[in-house]
Amino acid sequence: MGGDDAPGVPIAAARAVAGEVDVLLVGDPAALAGTGLDVVAADQVIDMGEDPALGVRAKPGASIAVAIDLLARGLVGAVVSAGSTGATLAAALLGLGRVPGVRRPVVAPVLPVGHGVVLVDAGASPDVQPEALVAHARLGGAYAAARGRVSPSVGLLNVGAEPGKGNSLARAAHALLSALPGFAGNVEPAAVLAGAVDVVVTDGFTGNVFLKTVEAMAAGGATGPGGVAGGVAGGRGEVHGGALLLGVDGVVVVAHGAAGEAELAAAIATAAVAARGDVVARLHALL
Amino acid sequence: MGGDDAPGVPIAAARAVAGEVDVLLVGDPAALAGTGLDVVAADQVIDMGEDPALGVRAKPGASIAVAIDLLARGLVGAVVSAGSTGATLAAALLGLGRVPGVRRPVVAPVLPVGHGVVLVDAGASPDVQPEALVAHARLGGAYAAARGRVSPSVGLLNVGAEPGKGNSLARAAHALLSALPGFAGNVEPAAVLAGAVDVVVTDGFTGNVFLKTVEAMAAGGATGPGGVAGGVAGGRGEVHGGALLLGVDGVVVVAHGAAGEAELAAAIATAAVAARGDVVARLHALL
Repeated sequence: MGGDDAPGVPIAAARAVAGEVDVLLVGDPAALAGTGLDVVAADQVIDMGEDPALGVRAKPGASIAVAIDLLARGLVGAVVSAGSTGATLAAALLGLGRVPGVRRPVVAPVLPVGHGVVLVDAGASPDVQPEALVAHARLGGAYAAARGRVSPSVGLLNVGAEPGKGNSLARAAHALLSALPGFAGNVEPAAVLAGAVDVVVTDGFTGNVFLKTVEAMAAGGATGPGGVAGGVAGGRGEVHGGALLLGVDGVVVVAHGAAGEAELAAAIATAAVAARGDVVARLHALL
Repeated sequence: MGGDDAPGVPIAAARAVAGEVDVLLVGDPAALAGTGLDVVAADQVIDMGEDPALGVRAKPGASIAVAIDLLARGLVGAVVSAGSTGATLAAALLGLGRVPGVRRPVVAPVLPVGHGVVLVDAGASPDVQPEALVAHARLGGAYAAARGRVSPSVGLLNVGAEPGKGNSLARAAHALLSALPGFAGNVEPAAVLAGAVDVVVTDGFTGNVFLKTVEAMAAGGATGPGGVAGGVAGGRGEVHGGALLLGVDGVVVVAHGAAGEAELAAAIATAAVAARGDVVARLHALL
């Protein structure tokens, strides 16, 4: 029931992947009737403007809470939501908890470049200390390894390749990350987009600005004569298949509120890949 | 003499615009001979790896220092450099000083979308306090006004449109900026790239990551099947014509070290527009 165009778009996306993934819809039974898909009833919805943590506690019957409960009970292998990321994260923390050793889960999309670049963090924690970027590197590395990368390389998103570049957070994080096996140093946006590393770490604010800029440019960005994206073929809004909430103790994928059918179908596929690849069990083993 | 491909590319760019702009080359006379352009001799060069402030003080004969001196003496109307931004800024501060009322000059490219979006700061100061973003707004607003915008609108680069979004810097800056006439609130990357505001303010780290991401995507970014820039027609590296060092007391424009002929020619045009538009005099009047 989450997202700008629910339940129409989620229903369409679920039907599109129903041949490859067993999909179960959670929400208002009346709205979901006649889809030919299994439905689990949930009679509440957490609104985008609502405080996520309070909303989740106040509405145990919210669709996201019911879906997470199905995952916690092992009745489904993964949850996908196009609703509020904050509410999804709050529901996941309440219903699933964290993988042992993880302090703060992160939002981790996989950019579809090279073998797939795991971006950590794309928005869970906008304000962090340098030590958090080391935790991001471990989480992202474990995810990349679970996705099949051997000895994944980790880069620090920065404004220059040389050590000493960046703001105080990046400089301090570079010093801490240098002790990590697989650390490949600073990476500029162009290197990330060329797939130069398997994992790129940054704070949740910079990561979200980076991701949204990539998405805006891929979607056509600016148009018209002389526009920065004048060379971009417009209309290609989807740059990744949702983002894993990396560090919560179950496979939970968030998609854009504005996600269309194809983007949401890609998010379901991301969730299916993570569940079938036992990503969470691997995180337990690797962390 | 600055930039990856000096003096070949600067010579070619200068010749390309010579019909519209009076260009004077500053550097090694032997290397610049036979160009048909006026040459002022400078026998030193500040290297990219050199400490900018120390380099400028130690090498008064460096091409950037000589060029800035010509500007300070009123013999030229603007200076353009593809050399180290740090060295250019240091030379400008030493030779020109700041516009009264300006604490810290900023790097201010104009994104070629809408009527031109002034980005402040694209890299001069990676670590700033919230108050600095108010100064960025005033500087950017004055520049936009000098470029002909009436009552320019100012947005705060952020990860969501609602107040309260972002990291601690953005949230505190939003509160301070709200008192400013023309403040249009938070703007996400897509809105910036749609030309929704005349000026976008941010810290120099986020601004540089944003700009470099736009440039990387415009240049083709990632390629190959499924790449995020799969819909991007490659090879379009230039997204703006250099960046004004906004707040120094003279028109100084920096271009990429890797700038090609067309990009450097665009930077010369940016400098010419700023000089002919009396941007610096207008900054004096407006600030």
